[in-house]
Amino acid sequence: MTRCQRRRTSVSGAFMLPRLLCLLCFAVISLAEENTEMVNVVTERKAEESHRQDSANLLIFIILLTLTILTIWLFKHRRFRFLHETGLAMIYGLFVGIILRFGVHLPQDLNDITLTCAMNSSPTTILVNVSGRFYEYSLKGEVRDSKGHDVPNAEMLRKVTFDPEVFFNILLPPIIFHAGYSLKRRHFFRNLGSILSYAFVGTVTSCFVTGLVMYGCVVFLKVIGQLGGDFFFTDCLFFGAIVSATDPVTVLAIFNELKVDVDLYALLFGESVLNDAVAIVLSSSIVAYQPEGDNRHTFDGSALLKSLGVFLGVFSGSFAMGAATGVMTALVTKFTKLRDFPLLETALFFLMSWSTFLLAEACGFTGVVAVLFCGITQAHYTYNNLSAESKSRSKQLFELLDFLAENFIFSYMGLTLFSFQHHVFNPLFVIGAFLAIFLGRAANIYPLSFLLNLGRKNKIASNFQHVMMFSGLRGAMTFALSIRDTATYARQMMFSTTLLIVFFTVWVCGGGTTPMLSLMHIRVGVDTDQDNSVSSTHKKHCLITKHESAWPFRLWYTFDHNYLKPFLTHSGPPLTSTLPACCGPIARCLTSSQAYENAGQLHDEDTELILNDDSSLMYSDMTVSTDAHGMPTPSTSQAGLYSLARTSDDPLDRELVFGGTRLVLPTDDPSDPLTSFPPPPPSPPLSDPLRHRV
Amino acid sequence: MTRCQRRRTSVSGAFMLPRLLCLLCFAVISLAEENTEMVNVVTERKAEESHRQDSANLLIFIILLTLTILTIWLFKHRRFRFLHETGLAMIYGLFVGIILRFGVHLPQDLNDITLTCAMNSSPTTILVNVSGRFYEYSLKGEVRDSKGHDVPNAEMLRKVTFDPEVFFNILLPPIIFHAGYSLKRRHFFRNLGSILSYAFVGTVTSCFVTGLVMYGCVVFLKVIGQLGGDFFFTDCLFFGAIVSATDPVTVLAIFNELKVDVDLYALLFGESVLNDAVAIVLSSSIVAYQPEGDNRHTFDGSALLKSLGVFLGVFSGSFAMGAATGVMTALVTKFTKLRDFPLLETALFFLMSWSTFLLAEACGFTGVVAVLFCGITQAHYTYNNLSAESKSRSKQLFELLDFLAENFIFSYMGLTLFSFQHHVFNPLFVIGAFLAIFLGRAANIYPLSFLLNLGRKNKIASNFQHVMMFSGLRGAMTFALSIRDTATYARQMMFSTTLLIVFFTVWVCGGGTTPMLSLMHIRVGVDTDQDNSVSSTHKKHCLITKHESAWPFRLWYTFDHNYLKPFLTHSGPPLTSTLPACCGPIARCLTSSQAYENAGQLHDEDTELILNDDSSLMYSDMTVSTDAHGMPTPSTSQAGLYSLARTSDDPLDRELVFGGTRLVLPTDDPSDPLTSFPPPPPSPPLSDPLRHRV
Repeated sequence: MTRCQRRRTSVSGAFMLPRLLCLLCFAVISLAEENTEMVNVVTERKAEESHRQDSANLLIFIILLTLTILTIWLFKHRRFRFLHETGLAMIYGLFVGIILRFGVHLPQDLNDITLTCAMNSSPTTILVNVSGRFYEYSLKGEVRDSKGHDVPNAEMLRKVTFDPEVFFNILLPPIIFHAGYSLKRRHFFRNLGSILSYAFVGTVTSCFVTGLVMYGCVVFLKVIGQLGGDFFFTDCLFFGAIVSATDPVTVLAIFNELKVDVDLYALLFGESVLNDAVAIVLSSSIVAYQPEGDNRHTFDGSALLKSLGVFLGVFSGSFAMGAATGVMTALVTKFTKLRDFPLLETALFFLMSWSTFLLAEACGFTGVVAVLFCGITQAHYTYNNLSAESKSRSKQLFELLDFLAENFIFSYMGLTLFSFQHHVFNPLFVIGAFLAIFLGRAANIYPLSFLLNLGRKNKIASNFQHVMMFSGLRGAMTFALSIRDTATYARQMMFSTTLLIVFFTVWVCGGGTTPMLSLMHIRVGVDTDQDNSVSSTHKKHCLITKHESAWPFRLWYTFDHNYLKPFLTHSGPPLTSTLPACCGPIARCLTSSQAYENAGQLHDEDTELILNDDSSLMYSDMTVSTDAHGMPTPSTSQAGLYSLARTSDDPLDRELVFGGTRLVLPTDDPSDPLTSFPPPPPSPPLSDPLRHRV
Repeated sequence: MTRCQRRRTSVSGAFMLPRLLCLLCFAVISLAEENTEMVNVVTERKAEESHRQDSANLLIFIILLTLTILTIWLFKHRRFRFLHETGLAMIYGLFVGIILRFGVHLPQDLNDITLTCAMNSSPTTILVNVSGRFYEYSLKGEVRDSKGHDVPNAEMLRKVTFDPEVFFNILLPPIIFHAGYSLKRRHFFRNLGSILSYAFVGTVTSCFVTGLVMYGCVVFLKVIGQLGGDFFFTDCLFFGAIVSATDPVTVLAIFNELKVDVDLYALLFGESVLNDAVAIVLSSSIVAYQPEGDNRHTFDGSALLKSLGVFLGVFSGSFAMGAATGVMTALVTKFTKLRDFPLLETALFFLMSWSTFLLAEACGFTGVVAVLFCGITQAHYTYNNLSAESKSRSKQLFELLDFLAENFIFSYMGLTLFSFQHHVFNPLFVIGAFLAIFLGRAANIYPLSFLLNLGRKNKIASNFQHVMMFSGLRGAMTFALSIRDTATYARQMMFSTTLLIVFFTVWVCGGGTTPMLSLMHIRVGVDTDQDNSVSSTHKKHCLITKHESAWPFRLWYTFDHNYLKPFLTHSGPPLTSTLPACCGPIARCLTSSQAYENAGQLHDEDTELILNDDSSLMYSDMTVSTDAHGMPTPSTSQAGLYSLARTSDDPLDRELVFGGTRLVLPTDDPSDPLTSFPPPPPSPPLSDPLRHRV
């Protein structure tokens, strides 16, 4: 304990020298004496050394991120658009990886002992009896072969390449939650049918196409003897599943900045967000599908059916869990006066959102999927209950977490190319993989777009399709899925190939988006305010929406607007006016006094970035005439009934179109009786919320 | 791989049943087959099981925190003050600990294998060769004796009691940073001398007194044969060091809420913040002091001197490192236009602050101390450069992190009482410890207050002293220091005793603060605005301050105000007016255009919570007459020189008194030539910043 602690507290800015001295001194000690006292010292020294090394490793990433931020600023400042920040983070990561691999030479650890034990399996925890003292060791994973020790700095590189679980448990949840939380629900729901088709049918198609192409490639490799290990059909399918998910990060940041056509933006964003969820569930279903034994490349119908069941079960289970947590948070924030203490409120919001993830993981569902739907639910319901301060706090918090996690993942990706020690680069396999993802993406976009266009009024133009094809970047999720398991030869080859695919798509496709858009004559700089507030386009949108939103959606919207929103939040029409009269007492009990106030103040929250989906024109008259105690005045009841009767028609579509906003637009239909009510005050903040939302 | 993944994706909400089935099935498998395929499956299964268990463990804490937040709200809502939130978190933690210990019965893991190996030491990483495959295991720590396995749920309890390094590396930094960042510098600096005395001299005194009393207690225990292991004099001193640090969390939250006298508040807060830093360095110095071999209870003068050197070296090194990072962040935020992108700015601010901690740890300094001074520097300099959005973002982010980390630590403390498996409760030792900390605290407060009162105009009244004595709560830092090493018998006994001390002080002393204050007739509900803006008290404060601020402080203030602030931030007088004429080009280069603007708008940031220390009366004239290009007009130079000449006198004291604010107060001395300048606009926001700051 003595020497060790003294070294720790010694004032020394140099980093390598004390480490070397310590190791040397440690070697001498361990040779000279063997009493328990010294063993204890050595253990503490080692633990401390390890702690210091961990700090240094983390510091590398922090410095990387800092550099990335500064360069991003420089790029934004100089309006330099051909390389996105994520691509940049990867480049910095690559450089650091090269330096760590070839530039730094640490002394070999003398005490990395290999035990040869007669064990049947590898338990998570083993106790090692060292001269009468027991030390606990925990399983870190399989080391493919012990020749990894020939690589210089193997120990350090292994430490830098940290636990892949970190991605799934720490870095991905905030990214996915933020995606759900900041989802532009208006355009998302307008294109919901198409988005679901691309995300579900498209991704599954792409997965199978890629898998089949890869299987062909693998068979060819086997024939010419270029394959160094097993590679089964299910491995190919697994590969298809992990590379089929497109990334919501890179392209969309560019699209958002360039103000590209809103529908194209909605399609790409919606697809890539749901994509991630589909890919996770799909890849684990494929692993579950693998029949027992070693005949794993045969095709089994019942197993396929079973894995489809697993897919649906996990997906719906995760969805339900995420939604349930969101609803619970909404109820808690509604029925407590927690909004008086924004700090507590934000903390609760954060913890509940995080607990969704942990709960889903602990129950065997998929945490990432649950957290996505939790984010959507939170934005739709809970957000309306939060105090103004918590609204901005929670938004900013998740924005920051998302930003940091994203850049961390991308710089880590760059670093991994050199720090990961079991890369299997097979040039033919890589070429095959690039071909496969190209074909898979094409099989997703073109046939589906053709089918969807049969039913859509607002056709997906061919230039849109080309951009969607081109912008299918692979990013964080693909990486996280492939690094999750790198135990076998097949998985290692997949990981290395995936890394190259991510690099290529982020740099080439990501950087080429702006030229691609101008090549395809896609409108850039679309002012979405104009797009919607001008009544001619408004009419057009109404028509589209009427056709696109089928009856299940309408039914859901009516239910959501009239019952769910008032029940779960302070906004929306008071339940006293939407529920039948017989439920009066319950309705009064469930409707907070704030709901009446909110309903009266339609323009209060115009400056919010995430806005409520309520308060379309038809409710504006009703809420004004509701008295403060929630007793509907006669005129209110009439207006309420009237609006209920109209709910399934025009107003709903109008709400769909202006879904996310509190805007009360004067309808331009002169026959509409609602225009006889006094029009809402002219809205100077009209353009503000829309600019943010789209 | 097959079964394992299938189990993972199986839809099952129940938690224990699948686990049991899995373990059973696993046992059967491992007995039946031994091929590598199965080993692989088993490894994955185990890793996954472990992941799921981790998720569940973390979930327990999240639920605990959620419960705590809801109860805190209830308490605040009902103005229920006798139990603070941290005490509450501990109670919940206790309950969960009891449930985990006695309520849940998990099956014993069949495969927890104890290897008996002929190793001389315990390396951090071992490779275990299991039938030709290598598995990496990492050292978790020493298990005191293998009889820990007799306790039911030993495995789970060991997992819940997670790595103490987590406290030092993840939970403490945000707490300490927040303390530094939100430090009320005005009152802190007014009482700096006393605070430093209490924190340094007082803590060291308390440490030695406690250590000596404990040594007496230990000797007594040895005589009556109640001691089950070694307990040296240095152990006693170490115990003294860890229990001497008072906690800034609990009492101060109460004090802040009650608006207790500002000086008392400043003394307690300042002491407890610096305390933590002193305790960390002190405890590691004591460990370093331990002479070699087993004669560790003898006293060695040279070793003491050496450890004093270590103490000073580590403290000043950590201080320098923290300050350097803060200054670097200030420079980066000043000279880039990063403030146009608040997200990037906040991210950079966060990363740089975090990197201080890691850098200090990697270099062998104390991260927590570095992060404290980094927080102070960031608040003093960098904060002025941030955009308005980043200011609120960073404040809110650290506030939230602080809140979560604090409550997590306290609920974890509660849980540890039952989940930690190596408690050594010795009733006599515990009684001795309570006596020792009482005496140690008394030896800190009363003699020092007496000595300080000799030099202070504004005496520390005896009722203040009693409250300071009573409010010496022990909290997170004491816990973190004691859980850091629980390998030996002495350390385990210390840990158990410390836990009891923390519980007692938080519940009894924390809960008794309000009655204690009324018993001691301490003013409650002090309106600090009144306290300072009324000119009679202002005069009094001036006098006090003049006596308290010795020449080194004055020198520092002048230097800071005239050179450092203008160099590092956008605020303060432009360097062009403070530097001598020969440095004109450099000064113009280093002064941003914003500095001129800011200097002209003295009242701009009155509503900020953390305010600048500049802009006292004497500079208001000067900056107005500086032209926009930084060329000082003749009148400016004169005013500048004049104010420089006066700097060491009245205005500085005035600045000290109103240090943290941008207030420009009219002096009430009619002979002051400065009053001939046009008085600043009447300040309606005058009361606002002060209310926040005090």
